[in-house]
Amino acid sequence: MTEISFTPLSDTTIDGVLDAVAFTADGLVPAIAQQHDSGEILMMAWMNRDSIRETLRSGRACYWSRSRQAFWRKGDTSGQVQNLVEFRIDCDGDTILLRVDQLGVACHTGRRSCFYRRAANDGLQVTDPVLMSPDALYGGDKGPGF
Amino acid sequence: MTEISFTPLSDTTIDGVLDAVAFTADGLVPAIAQQHDSGEILMMAWMNRDSIRETLRSGRACYWSRSRQAFWRKGDTSGQVQNLVEFRIDCDGDTILLRVDQLGVACHTGRRSCFYRRAANDGLQVTDPVLMSPDALYGGDKGPGF
Repeated sequence: MTEISFTPLSDTTIDGVLDAVAFTADGLVPAIAQQHDSGEILMMAWMNRDSIRETLRSGRACYWSRSRQAFWRKGDTSGQVQNLVEFRIDCDGDTILLRVDQLGVACHTGRRSCFYRRAANDGLQVTDPVLMSPDALYGGDKGPGF
Repeated sequence: MTEISFTPLSDTTIDGVLDAVAFTADGLVPAIAQQHDSGEILMMAWMNRDSIRETLRSGRACYWSRSRQAFWRKGDTSGQVQNLVEFRIDCDGDTILLRVDQLGVACHTGRRSCFYRRAANDGLQVTDPVLMSPDALYGGDKGPGF
């Protein structure tokens, strides 16, 4: 059975993780969210120090919304929570991989994944269905951070 | 059987894809490379217009190396080629997903994936073995773009 619970880390351990992250000049790092069991890539968003700390403390994926310039705990508005399964970092520390258990849908369009368009000979094809109404999710189009 | 060949796109179609990409002020967009069949996330790198065009024309993943400030056809130095299977774009056009068939290893450390470290209670754990010697790959440490 796949382990789907994340044991929150201590502040000291989190400090060590943060030391390994190569943040941009704006203090951000891109984070890929992947469904832990299917391997599906759900979305890409940005984290800052606070959102990494809170993610590793709470076991829920938190980001930094560049459009709103605000801390963003995924699912607080929409209910579409990402429970953390595993937190990974790449070789040069400038990208995070969050293996998560996504409740419902990741995308603000109501699709499971944000990557619902593929390049084909007749242009960009939409391959994934809308599973939830964006209006039902958060009462209006607030963009990809929701 | 999974289709693992990519049919190169016409320049007109590629123009349409490029119109849908939201590049940074530097003319770049982050691209996630995922092994098409296992779902494993191999690496994250950056593309510019030229590297997207060449990727969609040639069916081989090409990037822009920020460290070298140069066009980079993955595998030209190391032999560790990524053959494109599918090119996807996210909802707001600011991230690319390349589903590829990775020959050998993706990481300059000689590991299959760049995301070989996970956060755990005792700090960052290395989970993946070195499969190829970095020296054998490209004769020296040239960093993550190789």
